[in-house]
Amino acid sequence: MPNSNSNNAVCRIIVDAMGGDFAPLNVLLGAAEAASGNPSLNLFLTGPKDLLSKIITEKNILLNTDCIIDSSQVIGMDEHPASAIKSKPDSSIVVGVKKVKSGEADAFVSAGNTGAVMAASTLFMGRIKGVSRPTIGALMPNLAGVCMLYDVGSNVDAKPKNLFEWAVMASIFVSEIYGINNPTVGLLSVGEEKEKGNAIVLEAHELLHNSNLNFIGNVEGRDILKGSANIIVCDGFTGNIVLKFGESVLSFLKTKFKDFAQKSFTNKLKIGLVKGAMKEILSDFDSEAQGGVPLLGVNGISIIGHGSSSPLAIKNMILRAQEMHSKNLVQKIAASVNSHLLNKNLES
Amino acid sequence: MPNSNSNNAVCRIIVDAMGGDFAPLNVLLGAAEAASGNPSLNLFLTGPKDLLSKIITEKNILLNTDCIIDSSQVIGMDEHPASAIKSKPDSSIVVGVKKVKSGEADAFVSAGNTGAVMAASTLFMGRIKGVSRPTIGALMPNLAGVCMLYDVGSNVDAKPKNLFEWAVMASIFVSEIYGINNPTVGLLSVGEEKEKGNAIVLEAHELLHNSNLNFIGNVEGRDILKGSANIIVCDGFTGNIVLKFGESVLSFLKTKFKDFAQKSFTNKLKIGLVKGAMKEILSDFDSEAQGGVPLLGVNGISIIGHGSSSPLAIKNMILRAQEMHSKNLVQKIAASVNSHLLNKNLES
Repeated sequence: MPNSNSNNAVCRIIVDAMGGDFAPLNVLLGAAEAASGNPSLNLFLTGPKDLLSKIITEKNILLNTDCIIDSSQVIGMDEHPASAIKSKPDSSIVVGVKKVKSGEADAFVSAGNTGAVMAASTLFMGRIKGVSRPTIGALMPNLAGVCMLYDVGSNVDAKPKNLFEWAVMASIFVSEIYGINNPTVGLLSVGEEKEKGNAIVLEAHELLHNSNLNFIGNVEGRDILKGSANIIVCDGFTGNIVLKFGESVLSFLKTKFKDFAQKSFTNKLKIGLVKGAMKEILSDFDSEAQGGVPLLGVNGISIIGHGSSSPLAIKNMILRAQEMHSKNLVQKIAASVNSHLLNKNLES
Repeated sequence: MPNSNSNNAVCRIIVDAMGGDFAPLNVLLGAAEAASGNPSLNLFLTGPKDLLSKIITEKNILLNTDCIIDSSQVIGMDEHPASAIKSKPDSSIVVGVKKVKSGEADAFVSAGNTGAVMAASTLFMGRIKGVSRPTIGALMPNLAGVCMLYDVGSNVDAKPKNLFEWAVMASIFVSEIYGINNPTVGLLSVGEEKEKGNAIVLEAHELLHNSNLNFIGNVEGRDILKGSANIIVCDGFTGNIVLKFGESVLSFLKTKFKDFAQKSFTNKLKIGLVKGAMKEILSDFDSEAQGGVPLLGVNGISIIGHGSSSPLAIKNMILRAQEMHSKNLVQKIAASVNSHLLNKNLES
């Protein structure tokens, strides 16, 4: 029997075969890679059975078509999340999330419509007690090590207590997944002094300061790439804009390098010489190479990936889900949220 | 006599000789460069007369010491703006701004404490009628041409009407200074659809949509470096974080290139070959190379520069102030604010 620290049972993961810009092919390839030589993984795919079986056979993908859970509908990448999950109950997302809710599976993984996965996961899996808003973060390029930004888009009108809850959950996630003991938490603001910031930040500062998290105070926009904290919290509006700005640095530089190369033959030679180096150096800004991140705060494991996920990204998302399951992360997050809330009640 | 479109009179500019990390030397050098061969410029410097005279003489700087307006106090870069301008009435900033207020000068230029210059300019010059909050913007690196972000830090808790006013003022500024007829205005948000955004953005969208500005709708974080709009408006909290994140890209990449070079001799050679190219390509992220930007919305010209301003940046700030004066920009902004407010009243 699994103890509270680890769970060695077989992990049953549902993968949304129709999620992402290159679905279902990339998903099937990634799923096959994740399953290969991984006996403790029990993989299922949601999507139209006929279509998926055909591709698996045609492309000789090493997946058993018995693992397909037939679902007739697909939620498009640009569909309105709330209405889509309502109007498409037989979609690969809704069917998959509900399998976790019913206990038939341990985790759901999707590179599909982010908003729809978040909405379905929150609605059907439910929230962890004490969490008012689940959150999704992003691993940011940085010079120090691990720097995760929370929230990056699910909560555009956040309250101070939301930021605090995200810091609590992210602290457990970063500690367990990246092995960073007592990770540092920074609060994104316009100055390091605690008096600097908007109304939300000023209140969130107090909550974080009075907690037993490893809170290092306010950090600024420039601290993200420095990696001044392992976890940086902000409202989802600011986080989403910073994330997308960061993601656009790569294409900006690519265009600049290209323009420079086209100016002269010498320039072209120079750029040609360092193309590989450049690729290596700039890879930190390449969001497509990363796997997905979990929606923290729901009563279950739900991993959300970039729409442009490669087979490798899909594989990594599945393995992340498996790791979260084996480490009992949802239970640990629930316990931490509970203890922080209890502390708060005692103080007030 | 000047007409409403241009002002050919001599322009009297006060330069804060004590403003910036490299003051007074960089300021004096930049001021001398701006004044050289510029007969329509009448330059004054605020700061301790003895100190400034000594440096001008020692360094053979081509400035007449008669142009120094003696002021005994200096506001430090990290002092609290509001208390500093109160407790230091004889500071180079307060003395300089008051000369514009009294009509003895046409413009004030400083690379000093940004908050203090903004506070003093707003308090002493006063706001243009109809402007609830003056704003400061930043020229962002981008692939298309001119892209200015407003606000970048003076207003962390902005209201929708503030964003609208900034768009009105920035439209005049960008049109007159960069010669862009009817510049495009984008509203920074988490999605292009008008339903996407936080509460402030949703309301600001309506105000912008119903105006006769060249509003192109919501833009996302990735649209800044693309240059999807000439003017992008957002609250000062988000703007400040995006600006500082953007400024940090350069030092992030420099460190990455350095680390790469140190890995092997071949790497070192490769990086050495493209060092110049790299510098050229990345120069867009170099905020220090830029001159200053005006505080829009005050009843006068107040140009604020980066603390690390070089002599060239100081020179450019002075020339920008002169250009704003010769183009009667404050009057044009006041007229535009007035007309947009009148339009609004007619509609409601």
